[in-house]
Amino acid sequence: MSNQLALQMLAKRGVTLNDIAEIVLTLQMPYNNTLTKEECAESVLAVLNKREVQFTLYTGIALDELAERKLLPHPLQAIMEHDEPLFGVDETLALGIVHVYGMIGLTSFGYLDKKKMGIIRELNNHDTSIHVFLDDLVAGVAAAASARIAHQNKNVMEYLSKQSEAADI
Amino acid sequence: MSNQLALQMLAKRGVTLNDIAEIVLTLQMPYNNTLTKEECAESVLAVLNKREVQFTLYTGIALDELAERKLLPHPLQAIMEHDEPLFGVDETLALGIVHVYGMIGLTSFGYLDKKKMGIIRELNNHDTSIHVFLDDLVAGVAAAASARIAHQNKNVMEYLSKQSEAADI
Amino acid sequence: MSNQLALQMLAKRGVTLNDIAEIVLTLQMPYNNTLTKEECAESVLAVLNKREVQFTLYTGIALDELAERKLLPHPLQAIMEHDEPLFGVDETLALGIVHVYGMIGLTSFGYLDKKKMGIIRELNNHDTSIHVFLDDLVAGVAAAASARIAHQNKNVMEYLSKQSEAADI
Amino acid sequence: MSNQLALQMLAKRGVTLNDIAEIVLTLQMPYNNTLTKEECAESVLAVLNKREVQFTLYTGIALDELAERKLLPHPLQAIMEHDEPLFGVDETLALGIVHVYGMIGLTSFGYLDKKKMGIIRELNNHDTSIHVFLDDLVAGVAAAASARIAHQNKNVMEYLSKQSEAADI
Repeated sequence: MSNQLALQMLAKRGVTLNDIAEIVLTLQMPYNNTLTKEECAESVLAVLNKREVQFTLYTGIALDELAERKLLPHPLQAIMEHDEPLFGVDETLALGIVHVYGMIGLTSFGYLDKKKMGIIRELNNHDTSIHVFLDDLVAGVAAAASARIAHQNKNVMEYLSKQSEAADI
Repeated sequence: MSNQLALQMLAKRGVTLNDIAEIVLTLQMPYNNTLTKEECAESVLAVLNKREVQFTLYTGIALDELAERKLLPHPLQAIMEHDEPLFGVDETLALGIVHVYGMIGLTSFGYLDKKKMGIIRELNNHDTSIHVFLDDLVAGVAAAASARIAHQNKNVMEYLSKQSEAADI
Repeated sequence: MSNQLALQMLAKRGVTLNDIAEIVLTLQMPYNNTLTKEECAESVLAVLNKREVQFTLYTGIALDELAERKLLPHPLQAIMEHDEPLFGVDETLALGIVHVYGMIGLTSFGYLDKKKMGIIRELNNHDTSIHVFLDDLVAGVAAAASARIAHQNKNVMEYLSKQSEAADI
Repeated sequence: MSNQLALQMLAKRGVTLNDIAEIVLTLQMPYNNTLTKEECAESVLAVLNKREVQFTLYTGIALDELAERKLLPHPLQAIMEHDEPLFGVDETLALGIVHVYGMIGLTSFGYLDKKKMGIIRELNNHDTSIHVFLDDLVAGVAAAASARIAHQNKNVMEYLSKQSEAADI
């Protein structure tokens, strides 16, 4: 299953691949100063290739859109219109994306959701649209793509395999 | 915030307080042979009093109902009509209920979702309704109510406080 | 990083690749009647190749071994000697393994931890060793390997890509 | 079970109630400008009263101390001495604290772990001690205490009960 449908849905909701790649670059720059935005975009695409990520995006985006069209039952409709900060279901749902490249994406996810940088801030400040889930989903994808890059860092891999060679258990 | 609305919604979807209490009783019987169904029902009500549990129920039940009314966008509508076993969003969402009385509810949740006992099996075998989320939500509530009872077990509390008294760190 | 060290550690604690493969086979048989134990073993090896899984195993096994050698501080030593059912840290830790192939491993994990089939039961009934973490870790590995097989099921892949082709959003 | 033992253990590792209360105050100030440090400290104590939080603290602190005393088996000892950023088990373990007052503590946890404010930064910069788990545990406790305060915000409660009164499903 390709990532085309997920990309189309994100685009329809105002989020481009470039938007997410920029967040990943900002997150990973301190640890890797030769990293390019192209590599970040490639990592986002790899995350979007995961079926579970796609399913999570479909569900969260559907809920935002249904809320905009006032099709949700009470009191869910009211809760989403007010972007109730204690809702929590958006963060829980995003967990389905965050963990895709391990739990170390967790801290990046929380940081992004609080700092609301780049497109995440724009989504959050939008007057006429409902983005209760989308900001968390984008933060989740960016956090997972960022964790994926961290996991591929060659220096760490070498350090760890050296440890293993030294082992004589 | 009371649990009345959550109870009404569950009832509308064919799930009574008694249905869930029976599952809790079955789960906890091996560990506590004086436990009554009334105590189990009380524990379910306490779980349903938690705002985060209510929000999770509203969201999952709304998705089931919207799928029945064919109001979900493609491909989410098709995925839910087929109750795609790899969907995974239902399990992720239920995490928002399961953890309410600690992570020990996690194993009961998984067990229930696999054994599909009582009302969970009925929901799952229903021909004309869509219960993609509801069976996981009910399993989550029963698991949390069961964990709540386990946490209140006096013997454990005493054993642990005896440990603490013995401590001289 | 290979899975050799993880396999050695499991073996030292009495758990073989075959033990885990058998559990995976039992779990997946109802959904896939041509599945062999060799394929299950291969899936377990793939799970054990994940760095986060290895790190989780190292940590949990170290805690069990330190408890056997009575090197843990009070009250952790007492809690682990009694295999306190409300401890919960073992289930939380296993989450770091379970999610590796998505949240659908969650229900298998809970089921295994409750049914305690095969080697999991043997670990649990062992008189002289402490296996507070190991039974959850083995259940986590088996659940993840089982989820990995489910995700690779070709029929599901085709069904989903047919859905995508039909899409004209 | 009281929180005294947990407080003693934190103190032994250089973390006071006041240190954590200050972080909570910084986190919650933007949403509640009449909040006092005393109220934050009270919230931290409530979090530390939860048995699952105490068990998680005992386990994580024990691992840090055993690493300092070089008692952990290879390669866990080496991983913890290098505070390997891809370890991930520390974040997973902290989940057992974070969720205590709902998933909304998740974003605060991630934010704290990344910003490393107050005592979290001091722990992280410490030359001679090993705090692989402790910084995540403190971030988890502060995030949970912060979520607890958010959940008690009266304005939100009123808004929500008004919603419920208006309901006529």
